[in-house]
Amino acid sequence: MVAGSNLKHGLETPNELSTLFLSLKDHFQSLDQFLAEQVFSFEPEIRKIASYCLENGGKRIRSALVFFSGWKDISTVSPDLVRLAGIIEMVHLATLVHDDIMDAAELRRNRTTAAKKFGPDTAVLLGDALFSQAVHLATYFPTNEVCRHVSESTRRVCSGEIMQTLRDKNLNKNVETYRRIIDLKTAELFFVSCYLGAKLTHSSSQYADAAGVFGRHLGTAYQMYDDLTDFLGEESIIGKTLGTDLTSGKQTLPLLMFAERVGETQSNQTHQNILKGDPNAIKQIVQQMIELGIFEDVVTITEKEINLATKALQPFKKLSSTDQLLKIADILRNQIRALQSW
Amino acid sequence: MVAGSNLKHGLETPNELSTLFLSLKDHFQSLDQFLAEQVFSFEPEIRKIASYCLENGGKRIRSALVFFSGWKDISTVSPDLVRLAGIIEMVHLATLVHDDIMDAAELRRNRTTAAKKFGPDTAVLLGDALFSQAVHLATYFPTNEVCRHVSESTRRVCSGEIMQTLRDKNLNKNVETYRRIIDLKTAELFFVSCYLGAKLTHSSSQYADAAGVFGRHLGTAYQMYDDLTDFLGEESIIGKTLGTDLTSGKQTLPLLMFAERVGETQSNQTHQNILKGDPNAIKQIVQQMIELGIFEDVVTITEKEINLATKALQPFKKLSSTDQLLKIADILRNQIRALQSW
Repeated sequence: MVAGSNLKHGLETPNELSTLFLSLKDHFQSLDQFLAEQVFSFEPEIRKIASYCLENGGKRIRSALVFFSGWKDISTVSPDLVRLAGIIEMVHLATLVHDDIMDAAELRRNRTTAAKKFGPDTAVLLGDALFSQAVHLATYFPTNEVCRHVSESTRRVCSGEIMQTLRDKNLNKNVETYRRIIDLKTAELFFVSCYLGAKLTHSSSQYADAAGVFGRHLGTAYQMYDDLTDFLGEESIIGKTLGTDLTSGKQTLPLLMFAERVGETQSNQTHQNILKGDPNAIKQIVQQMIELGIFEDVVTITEKEINLATKALQPFKKLSSTDQLLKIADILRNQIRALQSW
Repeated sequence: MVAGSNLKHGLETPNELSTLFLSLKDHFQSLDQFLAEQVFSFEPEIRKIASYCLENGGKRIRSALVFFSGWKDISTVSPDLVRLAGIIEMVHLATLVHDDIMDAAELRRNRTTAAKKFGPDTAVLLGDALFSQAVHLATYFPTNEVCRHVSESTRRVCSGEIMQTLRDKNLNKNVETYRRIIDLKTAELFFVSCYLGAKLTHSSSQYADAAGVFGRHLGTAYQMYDDLTDFLGEESIIGKTLGTDLTSGKQTLPLLMFAERVGETQSNQTHQNILKGDPNAIKQIVQQMIELGIFEDVVTITEKEINLATKALQPFKKLSSTDQLLKIADILRNQIRALQSW
């Protein structure tokens, strides 16, 4: 499962982020138009299928990072940033298309997945076509730089997901491996969005580097937040989806920290009960986690990542793009605090 | 199923092509070294898996086309051509990795497929990582041109395969659709190998265009030849694999031309009998095809493609690269003639 796909709470609901994104209205409109135009780059015979995927706009947090990193003012919509945002969205969409095959997911963002609608074979190939077209679009920048970074980041995202797939089968489950995996599968696209967004607008390569560091830490925090929502999100609290990750066998940060604390034997036993579908087992583990202070620890670690993100931008406080990026970091910080109502 | 994957006869056995390829010994050695080095571009945790795929060298006909299109003399091994050949091999390998998932194939080139060895989920992601790394390598050329063409061709290959997947489920089975599909899924990589190989060496863009046209027609002929081997290849004749395509439901040129000749009703009925596993049905259809002269017709059409390929290079007869390319075309022509021993 890739970044944010499990998000049930917070950043998806009308909230501070939606308000902040109002300043991106024109940017997002241009992005929508750009993506809609891309349908015509595909061979006529597969346009309908490609279009089905391209229409499936999500939260667009990566696009927002592109626009904010290269921010000048509300009225300036740079075509280069729109192209970059479109490329990164397409890469992200391609990973989701492939992800849904592996998870045999039937719904994504309230729509039938490509895997379900067109079959897994077509979905494999469609993801490939989306990847290829994303990279192809990157070759229309004057230099190779954008394409070089995007293709490298794409490889790293895939590597992270391969590691996750292998880990799920093996016993190599620890926080260190977890951090490595989310750095690749989630933080990498956040990094490249910020790094290239800044690079396309600002002359200072130091700023691009700083924005990249910001993006990487923000992405890490975002994945950790996503993991927390499985236990503490609104839908979890009302009992609808509590422990979706738990029951799917996914290794999230709270669970890994729980295992570190209680030891592998007890953790495995509890987990086995959960996998057996025992509803009490989930309640028990959550209760134990609360007692052990696991959630507080995860929040502390997540906040540390947000602090590292904002720290990277300290030397560039005067830039309006820094302002925008820090707002996103603040909102994530607030969302995490809002989760702490257990 | 992608280009040449079904090839059981001819170009794989020690023959004229192997003799011609002796002149590429140094080139192939450099290519092997280049691909082996690429393993280290992957994240350490997935190098073993990536290496397993990269080792799986096949016929390397696309690489040969790269080297011959940019040919100067036997002792000149251009690093640019080695890189380009490596990129195209990696794209081709990625398509094979994904292809084997769809076909649930257990063996490819006498080795366990990645899908079987690592599981389909890992294989999907591994193919993606190979695609990404191939394109990434293309960004180390001074301009965007190689990357632009490679990523476009990759998208077109995927589109062709999507069309094939969709067609296999539908009734839209005719020679025209077949030609469109093989142009995308097979001829496209032959085209880009020749076009970019020529472009990287020769100053004349007219020559690159001509080499591209040569590649496209050669690729078309190659796929048609591959289709013929299902009926007329050595292994088919000795009864080992006769009608592999037929029994898998794949629409090949002989079968489509048979359907055009006898009408859809009779063709469908015969095909149903084959799919039911009736061994006599295969013999019957082949006998009928022989009587109707289907194979002669397919050979004629295939030879027409080879003629169009060689014609494209006519104005550039003096170039040593033309010499090499024409040798490949001649060998394919001979192989097709050798099949006509029915």
